[in-house]
Amino acid sequence: MPDLPKSIRINEEGPREGFQIEKGPISTARKIELIDSLSLTGLKHIQCVSFVNPKNVPGWADAEEVSQGFKKHPGVSYTCLWLNDKGLMRAIATKRYDIRGSISLTASEKFLKRNQNRTLKENYTAQGGMIRLFKENGINIDRASMMAAFGCNFEGDMPTERILGMVAQVFELAAEHDLEIKVLSLADTMAWATPATIKRIVGAVRNKHPDVELALHLHDTRGMGIANAYAGLEMGVAIYDAAVAGLGGCPFAAHKSAAGNVCTEDLVFMCEEMGIDTGVDLRKLIETAILAEDIVGHPLPGSVKGGGNLAVLREQIRAAQAA
Amino acid sequence: MPDLPKSIRINEEGPREGFQIEKGPISTARKIELIDSLSLTGLKHIQCVSFVNPKNVPGWADAEEVSQGFKKHPGVSYTCLWLNDKGLMRAIATKRYDIRGSISLTASEKFLKRNQNRTLKENYTAQGGMIRLFKENGINIDRASMMAAFGCNFEGDMPTERILGMVAQVFELAAEHDLEIKVLSLADTMAWATPATIKRIVGAVRNKHPDVELALHLHDTRGMGIANAYAGLEMGVAIYDAAVAGLGGCPFAAHKSAAGNVCTEDLVFMCEEMGIDTGVDLRKLIETAILAEDIVGHPLPGSVKGGGNLAVLREQIRAAQAA
Repeated sequence: MPDLPKSIRINEEGPREGFQIEKGPISTARKIELIDSLSLTGLKHIQCVSFVNPKNVPGWADAEEVSQGFKKHPGVSYTCLWLNDKGLMRAIATKRYDIRGSISLTASEKFLKRNQNRTLKENYTAQGGMIRLFKENGINIDRASMMAAFGCNFEGDMPTERILGMVAQVFELAAEHDLEIKVLSLADTMAWATPATIKRIVGAVRNKHPDVELALHLHDTRGMGIANAYAGLEMGVAIYDAAVAGLGGCPFAAHKSAAGNVCTEDLVFMCEEMGIDTGVDLRKLIETAILAEDIVGHPLPGSVKGGGNLAVLREQIRAAQAA
Repeated sequence: MPDLPKSIRINEEGPREGFQIEKGPISTARKIELIDSLSLTGLKHIQCVSFVNPKNVPGWADAEEVSQGFKKHPGVSYTCLWLNDKGLMRAIATKRYDIRGSISLTASEKFLKRNQNRTLKENYTAQGGMIRLFKENGINIDRASMMAAFGCNFEGDMPTERILGMVAQVFELAAEHDLEIKVLSLADTMAWATPATIKRIVGAVRNKHPDVELALHLHDTRGMGIANAYAGLEMGVAIYDAAVAGLGGCPFAAHKSAAGNVCTEDLVFMCEEMGIDTGVDLRKLIETAILAEDIVGHPLPGSVKGGGNLAVLREQIRAAQAA
């Protein structure tokens, strides 16, 4: 039996990822309702909104209103996404979020061009600019992320050496600015990973940088999300992004079925069943997943919300035995 | 990196499992169309129909017609399901199948009562009767299966010792009848397994019975199917039941979302991407999965049919680079 972590931390991205991609307009009140419901599940990190250009992402034209509307629950860290200085300034202005600075590199230049219209070099320079902006605003920077770390629809497979080279750039950039990176998130942005790829890339990065804590951002487009998370657990990874009910997806990934992140309640189910503590109340989370389906008005991909919580079945079985 | 098998054998159960559970009537011609399409994918084992009471399973009232209608492809073994002597006689009468004898025990008595209206003891006796019937008809018996081997909606978790005890009964019964069991299939009939349960049960059975080859039958009701298959691969299991597009499900499992077997094309995708040979042409299999959706007239759960085949993306990337 591998040495699985005793507990994991989940960064819930359902609201931010989900409402970004939904076609139908969703009211501000219902977006707030989902965040408030998530706040009561035991999740400790909730990414709420995206401060992006409403022309490109009309689903987040009401980011400010949503930010002011949800009720903060003690012990929960609320975060948000931005892609440039304008977005960051909007995020700060709300005074509602834990603003955490991060260096964000992308392993695939072609994807970066399509996604953010930048070359690798331009992005490196831009990240330097973001770091200066974080510092000017007194924001701590101890995280980094690498998009397309397991493969790219436009460039193909990612050789281990290339990812190690890109990760080295992250640490170079951090050193240039006197930063210490504590968490490095590897993102399977276009769902190229299998458990073997997870083990190859995570293993290589961990061997080279044993002191940085690794996180995984896994898309489920090809149905590998939970298996990839399991491979991550086997490698000792203890931080995962996830989306309740499997909300969301990447609008730039060039195919129709760009499924979202790995589903939070399915991940919680797997972990809790295997004795890995998530801190989450699965019953409340399943209720929230069903709420998410009601809000978007169509079925969402998560399985446990329909398949059922074994903890509840066990109670029913015990009650029947006692009767 | 674990020692994964170099190749696996897939027993395709989509037609049999799928058409058993679909609500709408599906024409005999379209059932045959699916089997004929599967025959050209490289799959070497296809379970086609179920010879059961048409009053209980109206979807298989045309089992004889389907059996006579599909075109046999060289090198493919066509099989079918029966639950009693009457079904077996119907199967033999078609002269279309590789009739393979099997001992079928169930770890949960409550499930057995609901599913086949038998106690464990009655089933043990009934299996003895089936063995005699196989022998009278010159049918080789070298396989066994254990339903509910990882947990049960009516009895709960399955302690390792209990499964080992049930497996011991399989071998006792085989010894009584001078049979050698070569393959033992462990079925997660009600989707209670996580990768940890797979490793616990498979590991214990393998340690106790190192000479029998293990197979896995994995339901995906709680989204763990592919992760459980990966855990099986890590344990060296090289035989898997699967259903194209994720067709099917168990009508007796007492909840709405009784998803079917692990999806064949998602399993093939994971294996081929990890260098494990399946013998299957994933392009043709994805076409067949899309055909299956057309036949049943509603979305089916498989992911790769929508998410896309990376082998095709790699070719497009190479072509774009060469241009």
